Amino acid sequence: MNNFEFKNPTKIIFGKDTIAKLENEIPQDAKVLLLYGGGSIKKNGIYEQVKSAIKNLKVVEFGGIPANPEYAVLMDALKIIKDEEITYLLAVGGGSVIDGTKILSAAALFEGDIPWDILSKGIKTEKGMPFGTVLTLPATGSEMNSGAVITRAETKEKRTMGGPGLFPEFSILDPQVISSIPQRQLANGLTDAFTHVLEQYMTYPNGALLQDRFAESVLQTIIEVAPKVLKDPTDYKAAADFMWSCTMALNGLLQKGVPTDWAVHAMGHELTALFGIDHARTLAVIAPSHYKYNFEAKKEKLAQYGERVWNITEGSTDDKAYAAIERTVAFFHELGIDTKLSDYTKDYEGTAETISKRFTERGWLGLGEHQTLSPDKVEKIVKMAY
Amino acid sequence: MNNFEFKNPTKIIFGKDTIAKLENEIPQDAKVLLLYGGGSIKKNGIYEQVKSAIKNLKVVEFGGIPANPEYAVLMDALKIIKDEEITYLLAVGGGSVIDGTKILSAAALFEGDIPWDILSKGIKTEKGMPFGTVLTLPATGSEMNSGAVITRAETKEKRTMGGPGLFPEFSILDPQVISSIPQRQLANGLTDAFTHVLEQYMTYPNGALLQDRFAESVLQTIIEVAPKVLKDPTDYKAAADFMWSCTMALNGLLQKGVPTDWAVHAMGHELTALFGIDHARTLAVIAPSHYKYNFEAKKEKLAQYGERVWNITEGSTDDKAYAAIERTVAFFHELGIDTKLSDYTKDYEGTAETISKRFTERGWLGLGEHQTLSPDKVEKIVKMAY
Repeated sequence: MNNFEFKNPTKIIFGKDTIAKLENEIPQDAKVLLLYGGGSIKKNGIYEQVKSAIKNLKVVEFGGIPANPEYAVLMDALKIIKDEEITYLLAVGGGSVIDGTKILSAAALFEGDIPWDILSKGIKTEKGMPFGTVLTLPATGSEMNSGAVITRAETKEKRTMGGPGLFPEFSILDPQVISSIPQRQLANGLTDAFTHVLEQYMTYPNGALLQDRFAESVLQTIIEVAPKVLKDPTDYKAAADFMWSCTMALNGLLQKGVPTDWAVHAMGHELTALFGIDHARTLAVIAPSHYKYNFEAKKEKLAQYGERVWNITEGSTDDKAYAAIERTVAFFHELGIDTKLSDYTKDYEGTAETISKRFTERGWLGLGEHQTLSPDKVEKIVKMAY
Repeated sequence: MNNFEFKNPTKIIFGKDTIAKLENEIPQDAKVLLLYGGGSIKKNGIYEQVKSAIKNLKVVEFGGIPANPEYAVLMDALKIIKDEEITYLLAVGGGSVIDGTKILSAAALFEGDIPWDILSKGIKTEKGMPFGTVLTLPATGSEMNSGAVITRAETKEKRTMGGPGLFPEFSILDPQVISSIPQRQLANGLTDAFTHVLEQYMTYPNGALLQDRFAESVLQTIIEVAPKVLKDPTDYKAAADFMWSCTMALNGLLQKGVPTDWAVHAMGHELTALFGIDHARTLAVIAPSHYKYNFEAKKEKLAQYGERVWNITEGSTDDKAYAAIERTVAFFHELGIDTKLSDYTKDYEGTAETISKRFTERGWLGLGEHQTLSPDKVEKIVKMAY
């Protein structure tokens, strides 16, 4: 096991009818900016529950944060934070709203002039404006971690940010919210969380036995509940396991003590930036090609995954590893997720070269757990994913 | 899955040669009370590493905290905290030293007159004196939780305490410390952590699929590394998995969303208080009888445990459940841990009645996950364990 440091101070409030507990989590003298997305919370009753819970607080609202939270929109919210002297942020939404809230938390106390520098210069936020979340869409794990991904439409970029000051103070996870989520987003959430685990697991064995088993536990649970969640989103038991699996998939625990990859995300983000493909679906496009291209380096872990998660017991290490990739592709298909770029766009020619060029320009010359995935290799993987 | 709240703010610093990082974790203006046990840290080099790391701080020392930390001894330390105007506590030791430090953290800021009230009246500590730990003996998980068990020799009592103010600010876990731990204590640590997981798992199925798998992951890992740790405590890989498993076994995560038992601990504590038997060994004495006595209520989980953890695939649910108990007993024996009270003392007659009477006097009329384990049942279980 590698050396590591781990600290995650977010308070999780999990379960049925927990949104009312908001009342006790935000300081009574706070001036709150309530942030949300496209307005679905006004249709499914969550908005009313939230408003009722914080009725005694001073609250300003900012809705309309889009999927792949857009920098320009968030800068409008930052202006409100400053003009209204906001002291506390409350994100009610999925990963996009929470991620958007994180850049606001960072930017509100940022001493530089240009908030984009936080992303472009990779500035770690040590202290942000305090914020909490009410999760409405399980997927990204943003509700219990300190990272965020922000999109800038004018340059077609998706960039990451984070820092120890960006953990939510609290996150409320009521699995009942899942009953009103459309199938497409449920499938995305399952795929996103599943791939988050793979990024922290599908590398090479390093003797972190417990960490491996925790990762496999999340994968097994997602596989077990996925058909139930898709068939009946009002199945509370399945919804609860789904929601908690998404949080545990990316709250920092699984990545401790082990090598991590994240090249699938690096490539996937570009597909969202270039074509607007749903984040989770870009991961399902890239992951199979990535694992096939890096087969030799990853086959021991692929075989372990095949054995323990998919019960693939026949054949050699190579056989099991290959079968595990195929089974993963089949799983994505069972969720209704296409796994080739050409399933999403006809304009895919040149994409591999564009992404490779971008990575070169950014100095991303060695991605992955061995830091050896160079832009020319990225180009080949993306081509394999056409 | 049951509703739950989870917050664990302890910073874990894990790995090889991490004790030197102490320097950055304690405020520079702190006046530190360095607490330790019987002095083994002066033989194995840990004391020197700690002293070197905090050489620029004002430090007072208090050694001699015994196993099953003794209230009277700790009150001597409390006097030093007050006389010397200590502001920060540093525990260097195993669960006993850390637990002892927790009552000091609580008592240092306690507004009542008699610190024992914290234990006897079950007062939750919301804010304690800040403290950190350097773990020298993996077992109890105290390094990443907010609970403690304190012994009072004059009344032969072991009582529990805790509260959200009693999480360590940081804990340093260097698996190299394991190389100098005696076999007896290694076996105790493995047994203690294993039983901690059982207390949070061996109840009844409630659909918390991920939580069950996390618990099984810790059990499987302890089983896998136990023989390696006992055979060669200098095996760093095995030591690291052992140490991390002990922490994860009782840092609060496993118990969230599931019913918990803890009756094994309640009964076991009495055996330590009455006979001075090592804590872990009392758990190995009680657990098999407890599971046999409550077989009908627990057999579904026992069978699941048998299947997933011990690969027991033959027979009915009852068969698997019974075999799982037998396999657990065999595992304790493989660790060199005896599982009958008569293996430890010849004076066991009347013990069951004594414990039953104590529980009645304390009003502990319904232990266990169903809160139905009454003192008369406790009496029968302890007798089965003779």
